[in-house]
Amino acid sequence: MRVLIVGASGTIGQAVAKQLDERHDIIRAGRKGPDVSVDITSVDSIRHMYEQIGPIDAVVSTAGSAHFAPLTELTPELNEIAVENKLKGQINLVLLGMQNVNDNGSFTLTTGILMDDPIPQGSSSAMANGGIKAFVKSAAIELPRGIRINSVSPNVLKESLHKYGDFFPGYEAVSAERVALAYQKSVEGAQTGQTYEVY
Amino acid sequence: MRVLIVGASGTIGQAVAKQLDERHDIIRAGRKGPDVSVDITSVDSIRHMYEQIGPIDAVVSTAGSAHFAPLTELTPELNEIAVENKLKGQINLVLLGMQNVNDNGSFTLTTGILMDDPIPQGSSSAMANGGIKAFVKSAAIELPRGIRINSVSPNVLKESLHKYGDFFPGYEAVSAERVALAYQKSVEGAQTGQTYEVY
Repeated sequence: MRVLIVGASGTIGQAVAKQLDERHDIIRAGRKGPDVSVDITSVDSIRHMYEQIGPIDAVVSTAGSAHFAPLTELTPELNEIAVENKLKGQINLVLLGMQNVNDNGSFTLTTGILMDDPIPQGSSSAMANGGIKAFVKSAAIELPRGIRINSVSPNVLKESLHKYGDFFPGYEAVSAERVALAYQKSVEGAQTGQTYEVY
Repeated sequence: MRVLIVGASGTIGQAVAKQLDERHDIIRAGRKGPDVSVDITSVDSIRHMYEQIGPIDAVVSTAGSAHFAPLTELTPELNEIAVENKLKGQINLVLLGMQNVNDNGSFTLTTGILMDDPIPQGSSSAMANGGIKAFVKSAAIELPRGIRINSVSPNVLKESLHKYGDFFPGYEAVSAERVALAYQKSVEGAQTGQTYEVY
């Protein structure tokens, strides 16, 4: 399969690429490429990316930032970061990419544990996760030509504990390698409308 | 209690007002008032509303539109309607209204069954619902001064069946009066972080 990974330079993106690389052709996309560059907050940039790469069998998104701030300091403007990136960015990858995905292909988006098991400062991220989860469940019943859609919801990564560990007391961190398995299940499996929780 | 209802002219808003009117002071807000006018897609308009009304004990939002379209016809631009209205509009009522809500007050937002039980053309609405549900769960652990937050997730309304019934085959419609009870539970009860499903 030809698999597009958006967010390929991130910790999860790299692990997914490694997991899928042996059996598939991987196209790595991100703000700095390496194969094709894309800014998911820009509709034009997403369109341009799809024009460049042509037909594909699977789109995996491990992209999408969010701002972390105490709720009392979260302004509408700071909340925009998650809205534009993790929420709309990933949804627009689907809305604008549908025509590029071959019959029986798939989309796999990324949510996260904060929608189910919240932490202080995580409300904006939780919002984006919950929005993606519900969109995936709904879009699955309408995608044409056998195209499937799922999301993967990772716990905090072992690889990120040195940076974010203090925000996640008592959370059982998971390896990026284990999280990558859920993306493989989505890409190579037959389910749709699922959110695979790796908690 | 002083209770602000945003979306007071809608079918649910009217039912909530009727349910709460005997025991509370109700301030009815909406695009055309009647007590105070507000456009929840505008940060300035929300700020101005809160300045006008002063301290309150509860904010109930039954506002927030979304565009219904087949997924293959849902553009990023059409998806903006739900993002700006039902999602960001309701979240900004919280972010900008926190300081106006008295100790041990509450916010009650509106989600909807489509995030759990999707229909064709409902992906954008489902997205907004899921985003609000996760935001509510997360914000609940951070709101200051004992302020609570919940959402109510209604099924299709009996009162709306003549307009929307064809979109909801086999859904067991609920009365606005029954939905209003969930808002009362949120306003007068003690729970927080909940989504009350009226299905």
